[in-house]
Amino acid sequence: MSSMWGKNLKISIFGESHGEAIGVTVDGLQAGFPLDFDLINAEMQKRKPGGKLATPRKEDDMPVILSGVFEGKTTGAPLTAVIYNKNTKSSDYEKMSHIARPGHADYTAFVKYNGANDYRGGGHFSGRLTACLVFAGAVCRQILKSQGIDVAVHIKSISNVEDESFGVEITNEQVSRLNESCFPLIDQSKRELMENEIALAASQKDSVGGVIECAVVGLPAGVGSPMFDGVENKIASIVFGIPAVKGIEFGLGFGAAKVRGSQNNDEFLIDGEKIKTKTNNCGGILGGITNGMPVVFRAAFKPTPSIAKQQNTVDFLKKENVVTQVVGRHDPCVVVRAAPVVKAAAAIAILDLLSEK
Amino acid sequence: MSSMWGKNLKISIFGESHGEAIGVTVDGLQAGFPLDFDLINAEMQKRKPGGKLATPRKEDDMPVILSGVFEGKTTGAPLTAVIYNKNTKSSDYEKMSHIARPGHADYTAFVKYNGANDYRGGGHFSGRLTACLVFAGAVCRQILKSQGIDVAVHIKSISNVEDESFGVEITNEQVSRLNESCFPLIDQSKRELMENEIALAASQKDSVGGVIECAVVGLPAGVGSPMFDGVENKIASIVFGIPAVKGIEFGLGFGAAKVRGSQNNDEFLIDGEKIKTKTNNCGGILGGITNGMPVVFRAAFKPTPSIAKQQNTVDFLKKENVVTQVVGRHDPCVVVRAAPVVKAAAAIAILDLLSEK
Amino acid sequence: MSSMWGKNLKISIFGESHGEAIGVTVDGLQAGFPLDFDLINAEMQKRKPGGKLATPRKEDDMPVILSGVFEGKTTGAPLTAVIYNKNTKSSDYEKMSHIARPGHADYTAFVKYNGANDYRGGGHFSGRLTACLVFAGAVCRQILKSQGIDVAVHIKSISNVEDESFGVEITNEQVSRLNESCFPLIDQSKRELMENEIALAASQKDSVGGVIECAVVGLPAGVGSPMFDGVENKIASIVFGIPAVKGIEFGLGFGAAKVRGSQNNDEFLIDGEKIKTKTNNCGGILGGITNGMPVVFRAAFKPTPSIAKQQNTVDFLKKENVVTQVVGRHDPCVVVRAAPVVKAAAAIAILDLLSEK
Amino acid sequence: MSSMWGKNLKISIFGESHGEAIGVTVDGLQAGFPLDFDLINAEMQKRKPGGKLATPRKEDDMPVILSGVFEGKTTGAPLTAVIYNKNTKSSDYEKMSHIARPGHADYTAFVKYNGANDYRGGGHFSGRLTACLVFAGAVCRQILKSQGIDVAVHIKSISNVEDESFGVEITNEQVSRLNESCFPLIDQSKRELMENEIALAASQKDSVGGVIECAVVGLPAGVGSPMFDGVENKIASIVFGIPAVKGIEFGLGFGAAKVRGSQNNDEFLIDGEKIKTKTNNCGGILGGITNGMPVVFRAAFKPTPSIAKQQNTVDFLKKENVVTQVVGRHDPCVVVRAAPVVKAAAAIAILDLLSEK
Repeated sequence: MSSMWGKNLKISIFGESHGEAIGVTVDGLQAGFPLDFDLINAEMQKRKPGGKLATPRKEDDMPVILSGVFEGKTTGAPLTAVIYNKNTKSSDYEKMSHIARPGHADYTAFVKYNGANDYRGGGHFSGRLTACLVFAGAVCRQILKSQGIDVAVHIKSISNVEDESFGVEITNEQVSRLNESCFPLIDQSKRELMENEIALAASQKDSVGGVIECAVVGLPAGVGSPMFDGVENKIASIVFGIPAVKGIEFGLGFGAAKVRGSQNNDEFLIDGEKIKTKTNNCGGILGGITNGMPVVFRAAFKPTPSIAKQQNTVDFLKKENVVTQVVGRHDPCVVVRAAPVVKAAAAIAILDLLSEK
Repeated sequence: MSSMWGKNLKISIFGESHGEAIGVTVDGLQAGFPLDFDLINAEMQKRKPGGKLATPRKEDDMPVILSGVFEGKTTGAPLTAVIYNKNTKSSDYEKMSHIARPGHADYTAFVKYNGANDYRGGGHFSGRLTACLVFAGAVCRQILKSQGIDVAVHIKSISNVEDESFGVEITNEQVSRLNESCFPLIDQSKRELMENEIALAASQKDSVGGVIECAVVGLPAGVGSPMFDGVENKIASIVFGIPAVKGIEFGLGFGAAKVRGSQNNDEFLIDGEKIKTKTNNCGGILGGITNGMPVVFRAAFKPTPSIAKQQNTVDFLKKENVVTQVVGRHDPCVVVRAAPVVKAAAAIAILDLLSEK
Repeated sequence: MSSMWGKNLKISIFGESHGEAIGVTVDGLQAGFPLDFDLINAEMQKRKPGGKLATPRKEDDMPVILSGVFEGKTTGAPLTAVIYNKNTKSSDYEKMSHIARPGHADYTAFVKYNGANDYRGGGHFSGRLTACLVFAGAVCRQILKSQGIDVAVHIKSISNVEDESFGVEITNEQVSRLNESCFPLIDQSKRELMENEIALAASQKDSVGGVIECAVVGLPAGVGSPMFDGVENKIASIVFGIPAVKGIEFGLGFGAAKVRGSQNNDEFLIDGEKIKTKTNNCGGILGGITNGMPVVFRAAFKPTPSIAKQQNTVDFLKKENVVTQVVGRHDPCVVVRAAPVVKAAAAIAILDLLSEK
Repeated sequence: MSSMWGKNLKISIFGESHGEAIGVTVDGLQAGFPLDFDLINAEMQKRKPGGKLATPRKEDDMPVILSGVFEGKTTGAPLTAVIYNKNTKSSDYEKMSHIARPGHADYTAFVKYNGANDYRGGGHFSGRLTACLVFAGAVCRQILKSQGIDVAVHIKSISNVEDESFGVEITNEQVSRLNESCFPLIDQSKRELMENEIALAASQKDSVGGVIECAVVGLPAGVGSPMFDGVENKIASIVFGIPAVKGIEFGLGFGAAKVRGSQNNDEFLIDGEKIKTKTNNCGGILGGITNGMPVVFRAAFKPTPSIAKQQNTVDFLKKENVVTQVVGRHDPCVVVRAAPVVKAAAAIAILDLLSEK
């Protein structure tokens, strides 16, 4: 669907990094839902550039609602929000339009769009577009919350510094605490190590990647479908829409490929009235359908491709080898700002799944 | 889309393990393509149960074409093939219909379908349904081959036994060799170790999982889209339709989250007339679009949930804890038979991507 | 979507007139619904060739269920039924494969499929494929009936012989009576006139068309959407999938274009607890959404293009003018057999609309 | 799809009549196409309110491009344009929010959206939203024109005043002439009669409807598909997204239901190198696929439901009968302004059909 996604709950994302505006239309929202703009803004802030360790590009990044909200509530018609681009410095980019920055989409976009794409700042490929996902996700998450469902993320790793993983049970307190943080961790003591890792890479004109772990709690059993409308398919199909994501795994994920069936199988047990599992290696999903345990997945982010180091590459117009050095404003690590984006993508996917009878 | 998938090239899969038949409709194929039924059958054979280490359930598994083929060529109308279920032993399953086999969809299907699903042999959730994917994929792969594109897979790992990975360059010889094998490996010496691993698990009433690595070669640069119609999204959305898949990664994947940008970025270089990259950590995809290098991904398979060991679980109707032991015919490892399924899924995804102008 | 249709309730139709079989997959049905096969068969009979005035080609046309039904109830997995082609006389068609029969898709199919389509008996374009719609519609209609909704059709006109129109109120008795008839009319006295019209055309080696009027009763207000998921869009998008349909109109339809707003507007009124309208010129739909009145539409069928009269046309391979005379077995009027097809299409469309939250 | 439409070429429409803005995203456009903004504006002008016979509400209605255009050319990324709402007089509407205006979606929207819809000026149901279609259609039509395809419309009828119909051949001159006119007619002498008809209705506090006829010329044979992706299905599914449309017919349409097969069948003939038909009763479509002749269809518009006459209706909140009189600014006839909207819808549908390989 290109820049549109979803079945019953659909999003349509538009905009280019240095164009007039970026924005998103969310179609299929229930009517009459009172939006909490503070929650939306809080999420937008988490993704916003300008943190100590992030890109110095500063923008208000405040979404302007164009439609779909009346007297503070959703109308049921498409909700569109735009973020106007104000603080753009296109000149940084203009000279290098035929140099393929390694790890970037410059060359692939050139081929696909026959050279007509807006290359400034990555154009439609820019990580800036994820602000649209964050907006849409914040709206969807509110609706989920009103149904007793919530989503939380934490930074599972940056480079080789690892946070703990979600446990089998995830408390509301943990979910709240993670949602309040702009550097969400289960083990807060890892923050300094992670920040050091990022700072070290930056000082060496380099960058680091990492992993975001996400949990959806409060979902009843029975959501999803076998085959192609399963929870895993849905989440994967939107999460790979986030730039820099190169892998996704549910529950034990790639780890499951290394253990025995007797270790990986989650034993069911009766807990009062509820059916639970003793472990959650399946990530809350069996046969594409939720089993009532938290849905847990991890998304792997590659290190920021924009680095200040010299790199060998090509001028794809002249077809000759060149040496390049990426200038401009870039994060040495996108993972911290990616956390709210993954949360948003999960919220959108889950609300779409729940929008089917 | 539940059991339908695709945009311009669509598949619709139907059937239950112990019902009348399973089958698949492929809609959107080009007309006039002469089908090579030997190639189709060769792929079907690779997935077929009955190998030395696989389930003793034997079936012909030969697809019968109902439509879409005339005088040996595709007609352009939907191509439907069915595989009739002959050798079913439903009695094995009938007594345990309310016992949730750990790691299976028994409980989640019960909740979703209100107890009306055909539970025999896993019903629509059965791995048997992947025969439909293999058929459809074999058809799609032929069309890709006629365009100079091919797909190859190998068993990257079983339990902790690892095969080598695809190199940066993948030769036609390697692709051919892998496609001829029913136990495809880059380093053939690993076969015995892997078979031993499977046999050991089986002897201990247990099972093992593994990883399949897949490469699509011959793709031009410029295929795919940013955001939600990217190559990664497309492939992930169909690969998670294969039962037991719990993770997918492209290129370096989760490994990219651990290295520096300067290590992960693939340097571009001019090779004669072509633009290539020195490494292929991006798995041939930048910004959702192919860069002309092989598209490489890995899918993680959990160990077969059906094990002969005693397991604690619940009777979800009586809501009480019980002990169960899975009887019936099961593979101690699905990974070998999953190899052609992953190849098929990739072929279908790529042909769909190429079906858009 | 080619031969697939729908969003939450999807159908996938396959088959060619003289191939192995035709069939349909219905995906997204609720689980546990007990199917009434007599009702299905009754509808199949109405569409079946072989009536006094219809084509002499006789077929059992009995659908064989391949999947999705277990112990007489829907399983929630895709329901597939096939009808094997038995009584085919391909030789009638074989010699004329490059002569464009006027009014047929011979030439357009040749161009689109590059000559590879199965031309025998119209292939995938054959009216025979509507048996698949009738099957799927009969399943959907049962589910609608269990929710207090039903669909009825009558032959509004054949050539210039007109039946009455549905009134503002449509009683359950009228619905039942129409559903029991294989020549459904509001004014039964028109049957003889219509049959005479058909017989006259046949005797003159010619054919006639007509109009089917359809009503969906029992729908609550609030079903549908503005813009592109409206009730009109949905119904039109499936009804134009019936061969020979060249027009569709809702409520007063084209008649509305000729009257004043004061005549066309339906006055609302309170009737006990219910809100109704005094007239139903809008066909039960305002802004794409049901208003609680019967949804009423009419579909125009062109006269059967296959006529025994000599016609001028071309050989599109040799590119020369020729004279042709269509031989083979053909109805002088498809309208009577089209009645259950329109009913089926409406039932499928409405169930899809109701499958969204 | 609610307010999104399309497969390979997609549009997403948002906005409410009295909200911040209305707008449209067009996704899937080819990159590098130089946009002719004069052509876009010319079409916008034709739809714009404020003509002598149209609503006195005046707006600039000038679309602002937010994304998808760089240096005057399409970038291949989603093209979004918004039209800010400036001259809104909400007070006209505010008092009557629970009175169902006959012929309007007030009541159906209230039920569907549980009273939360933005009722001001019809909200998302307003005819004003068709400006978005006109914009998107003007973009698509330019691309069609660059491929030798064009679209033309004329007012086939207003009330009982009829224009001529398109002939079998439609010249480029006729297409150009119709596209230059803001009151497009084949027989210009009918304009005065039509205007009188509208003026008479207005003077009597009433309104009139009419029919728009549309032709797509220059299409090659072989575009479209049988069943559900046919040219008729595609066009119908978008045209019913235009408010007030209650019917659509292709070629002879409902007229075909009244004639004999021998009259309706279009004889093929060789004309130089081309295959043509002598008549065009099929509207250029056989089996859902173009035959190379102009695609011709007509859409029926009901009379404007907003009339100044007193009407009986209900207060759907209080559930009581009331008398209402619609105040505010309304056209006595939407048909003239609907002409560019139908043209736009056709252009979008055709470009989507052509975007598939």
